[in-house]
Amino acid sequence: MKLLRYLLLSASALVPLQPVAAECLTRGTGDMGIVIERAAGSLKVVDTSNHSELFRVTGLGDLSHASAVYSRDGRYAFVFGRDGGLTKVDILCGNIVKRLIQSGNSIGGAISQDGSLIAVSNYEPGGVKIFSSTALDLVADIPATEIKDREGKLKGSKTVGLVDAPGNRFAVSLFESGEAWVIDMKQQDAPKIIKHTGIGSLPYDALVTPDGRFYLSGLFGEDGLSLLDLWHPETPARKILQEYGRGEQKLPVYKMPHLEGWAMAGDRAFLPAVGRHEVLIVKRGEWQEEARIKVHSQPVFVMARPDGRQVWVNFAFPDNDTIQVIDTESFEIIKTLKTGKGTLHMEFTPRGEEVWISVRDSDEVQIYDTDSLELLHRLPADKPSGIFFTSRAHQTGL
Amino acid sequence: MKLLRYLLLSASALVPLQPVAAECLTRGTGDMGIVIERAAGSLKVVDTSNHSELFRVTGLGDLSHASAVYSRDGRYAFVFGRDGGLTKVDILCGNIVKRLIQSGNSIGGAISQDGSLIAVSNYEPGGVKIFSSTALDLVADIPATEIKDREGKLKGSKTVGLVDAPGNRFAVSLFESGEAWVIDMKQQDAPKIIKHTGIGSLPYDALVTPDGRFYLSGLFGEDGLSLLDLWHPETPARKILQEYGRGEQKLPVYKMPHLEGWAMAGDRAFLPAVGRHEVLIVKRGEWQEEARIKVHSQPVFVMARPDGRQVWVNFAFPDNDTIQVIDTESFEIIKTLKTGKGTLHMEFTPRGEEVWISVRDSDEVQIYDTDSLELLHRLPADKPSGIFFTSRAHQTGL
Repeated sequence: MKLLRYLLLSASALVPLQPVAAECLTRGTGDMGIVIERAAGSLKVVDTSNHSELFRVTGLGDLSHASAVYSRDGRYAFVFGRDGGLTKVDILCGNIVKRLIQSGNSIGGAISQDGSLIAVSNYEPGGVKIFSSTALDLVADIPATEIKDREGKLKGSKTVGLVDAPGNRFAVSLFESGEAWVIDMKQQDAPKIIKHTGIGSLPYDALVTPDGRFYLSGLFGEDGLSLLDLWHPETPARKILQEYGRGEQKLPVYKMPHLEGWAMAGDRAFLPAVGRHEVLIVKRGEWQEEARIKVHSQPVFVMARPDGRQVWVNFAFPDNDTIQVIDTESFEIIKTLKTGKGTLHMEFTPRGEEVWISVRDSDEVQIYDTDSLELLHRLPADKPSGIFFTSRAHQTGL
Repeated sequence: MKLLRYLLLSASALVPLQPVAAECLTRGTGDMGIVIERAAGSLKVVDTSNHSELFRVTGLGDLSHASAVYSRDGRYAFVFGRDGGLTKVDILCGNIVKRLIQSGNSIGGAISQDGSLIAVSNYEPGGVKIFSSTALDLVADIPATEIKDREGKLKGSKTVGLVDAPGNRFAVSLFESGEAWVIDMKQQDAPKIIKHTGIGSLPYDALVTPDGRFYLSGLFGEDGLSLLDLWHPETPARKILQEYGRGEQKLPVYKMPHLEGWAMAGDRAFLPAVGRHEVLIVKRGEWQEEARIKVHSQPVFVMARPDGRQVWVNFAFPDNDTIQVIDTESFEIIKTLKTGKGTLHMEFTPRGEEVWISVRDSDEVQIYDTDSLELLHRLPADKPSGIFFTSRAHQTGL
């Protein structure tokens, strides 16, 4: 059996786009996930119960800055590559079902609440393309607002911070034109779009709260955040946290923090400060800053353990060899872990007993017990970056 | 391979408690679930993407008041029957893997955070038994505090409201002795138990908040609820909502409402009133009553759509033919559905676009679109009661 699988996998490396499948697995998908291998353009399919690799899938193109969403059955991962590639991977069979280059340069995507639609936000050309999740057929092609580039030529705004929202809707921000759009796909042949203009200067990323209600766009061109209440999608966006951003001093920012890395724990949000070595604590609803926690360096991802008891933080280059764990009740740092250079991403198991951390320069994923904070296991991976577990299939905005 | 699988399955058919399986399915488990058929002692395995039945599994004993939890991979359902039966069902193969009668009369169970342990709370004899989730081997047998029955004989307190909590812990309430216990199973061969006595008179059910932090026991013998903060499990339980209960008038109560039917929506909890035709709204954290909503009859389950935008309510006999939908922002009833007699349970799809409702006396499950509130489909089922989707595998306290 093992030999057969090896032979099949070796053969698959030679065939572009539709590799031969190894034998498909009959097993539950609830404890599975993928680990992106960014340099090799491949991914590992993993088993979180046994800390093991099930398949390696190659041929996914440029996976720097890649992300993924899952079909509602948890069987298919849709991987968004930097090169505009959209790849549907069958994690039970370890093969690519379909792959297409849907634009020149893309930055992420989302799956609709009912699982029928995959939306992709593009840099080049700007705009949002929406595909069927079954065959990846184009369902809608929504161009972005045009702006003038440096040479005065018209081009579409970059679209960023694309998320799904209840009611088969998507929300997206437009970078150069400073907009936030709510795209209603209930009628797939007739998308309805609510366009909010003037939400702020250069929204560079966004997030939706786990309940799918509040859509927050981070601004590169000014301080503060823009907030839309998706329960009232016609109400104009408003500014919150006016102090949030690079501030008057315009500190050097090595990496703009991911907004998807905001942690919601109880009624508080824990945010990466921009440029400063701080995590900000904000009361949800009022959206007022409550406290700041001094941390190791510039935070990138600030992620809550699913029960909200801890927040785990990684950091920007050149300090990306460290993870800090914050107690969300005392606001104290309870552990500093030296994971190694290129600590890029974290993913908690669905009920939070473990966290998987990709350490690019050590070519491994480190698995920690979140109770003892001890290292449990190292799983080899080729320059791992994003880790995505199938439990995301059941969550809004992930 | 297929032949081999058939032969293996056929062989297994000769072993009792291992009914003949159809061929096992290779598919994602994320969009699957079970529907309990209470009178027949059977269950249906269902596909929520296609609104279809995949298997029917028989031989589960007395399933009145049955509940179920899932293995962390989503493949196995553990069904707790009223007769003390604990049955492990493989939903990909549609068969019973193992079944045992672990007590004379049981009331529910839970699966540990790491998925390794199944705990069952028993009426007869009282106490908690804990089994391995793989082979259902007994790992721990925890007797309840002894009390005197009507004839003056010693017997174990009934255990109720058993839930899982982060850190491989379980919490349980003891009915006659008025206690709440926190059972720490990190070391499986040496359970550590924190026993809180005097939490109130006759706790009859309990719930844990979705984040696993607050454990609330409902009291049959007095008004109010008992609250334990599992972040501080040594701190004594305290009373909250002193008005909550049957009150001075001792109204006739046709059915004590399920506490698991509390809805958490944003920072509010929506609770079924006891005896009264009301849903209570309580601010989480302060645990003070904020408002009451008049409803059709005595509420049983008050369940929030996963995004917290709506709360769906069913009612006690003789008014159990109705569902009402409450808008959680305006507190208004936006729809009254006449689903039919014996409307017993509801389960939302993981991201909330649909809700499945079991209508016992019509022998069907009704599936509604939660946006349009329209009936989408009817699925035949033999006296259906509880509906449990695999997304519960990833949630605390369910």
